[in-house]
Amino acid sequence: MNSSAPSPRTQVHRKPQRAHYDAGTVHAIIDQALVCQIAFNQGGSVHCLPTACWRGGEHLYIHGANNSRLTQTLLTDDCAVSITHLDGLVLARSAFHHSMNYRSVVIYGRFTEVTDTDAKAAAFRSFVDHVSPGRAARVRLPSPAEIAGTRLLRISLDEAVAKIRNWGVEDSAEDMDIPVWAGVMPLTLNAGPLQPEAGCEGQEAPQKPGFIGA
Amino acid sequence: MNSSAPSPRTQVHRKPQRAHYDAGTVHAIIDQALVCQIAFNQGGSVHCLPTACWRGGEHLYIHGANNSRLTQTLLTDDCAVSITHLDGLVLARSAFHHSMNYRSVVIYGRFTEVTDTDAKAAAFRSFVDHVSPGRAARVRLPSPAEIAGTRLLRISLDEAVAKIRNWGVEDSAEDMDIPVWAGVMPLTLNAGPLQPEAGCEGQEAPQKPGFIGA
Repeated sequence: MNSSAPSPRTQVHRKPQRAHYDAGTVHAIIDQALVCQIAFNQGGSVHCLPTACWRGGEHLYIHGANNSRLTQTLLTDDCAVSITHLDGLVLARSAFHHSMNYRSVVIYGRFTEVTDTDAKAAAFRSFVDHVSPGRAARVRLPSPAEIAGTRLLRISLDEAVAKIRNWGVEDSAEDMDIPVWAGVMPLTLNAGPLQPEAGCEGQEAPQKPGFIGA
Repeated sequence: MNSSAPSPRTQVHRKPQRAHYDAGTVHAIIDQALVCQIAFNQGGSVHCLPTACWRGGEHLYIHGANNSRLTQTLLTDDCAVSITHLDGLVLARSAFHHSMNYRSVVIYGRFTEVTDTDAKAAAFRSFVDHVSPGRAARVRLPSPAEIAGTRLLRISLDEAVAKIRNWGVEDSAEDMDIPVWAGVMPLTLNAGPLQPEAGCEGQEAPQKPGFIGA
């Protein structure tokens, strides 16, 4: 547990020993994310939608078509953004003490639009390199029309909280003699065998993100 | 694209060719999930929190401590539940046509509480077996006090929508000669080497969920 919550709504009440409010921890979790979940209200209903994301400095970035419902709505109201990495199954001797290891971040605030063409071009390069390091230098970069047709949004990381569980089983003393395997089954996101398009077999294989396993 | 949306708010407008509304597709995606994200409103703010989940029949189940904010709030208002499996990075010849393969579900509605002790016990057994098949028969099952102290919630899958992208690169014709590797980098969630508690090395190793890779 580091520093203090930046706002009442980021204050962790359940299992506060898992909470982290420092930027370094928040950034490290975001930097291993390819997708986030965004909660927002529209049309009298709450919604939760996944979208690709990446970090630049003190902001989380997303993008979408200019006419997309999600990006239009996000500019007009606060939202919550959630990122979760599931790191392991914690298998206890009692059903009650089963748990999961994870690293999660929730960000509160409102997205703003980045409209400067050069800033957008730089952000999209960064996004491509987040997905596959070094790739932006090899692909055709977005044309002016493609940049103009894509909305780039960012949200400040000022109001964010991380929550981490990364330890072993916590069984009660009276359960320690139950004859069953107990421990952690780690889970990792791994890249599988590449599936090249026809004609691409001779090209240098793309890099996987450093946080993805082989 | 199968059948039709069960409600206006489940109707997919962006890329409707990726939408699926049939129960079989929705169930199959939920059955490979260990965690969902729940969007809800509380205290004048929208929130998005991850929690463990599993399916039983036509419902998605979650659980929490009786005094948890999340489970208390969810009984009083509608929410949206999102599940996303990231299946691959779609690496195109142009930055613009990069994409991701995924299977996602969004469920709308309101959670209700299951209070019957036998129904709760059966659901918790099912949860343990979802996390590790066959494990419920080996661990100490919840005591009456543990069952009473845990809130079990479920939400109907009647108002749900799945969205799937599971195909290759869609570059423009004029980009096909760009000399860069293009194709799909598959991503899978895999179990790593088990980390047994001291004294458990002689016990039979736990099963991983069938949808987790080795």
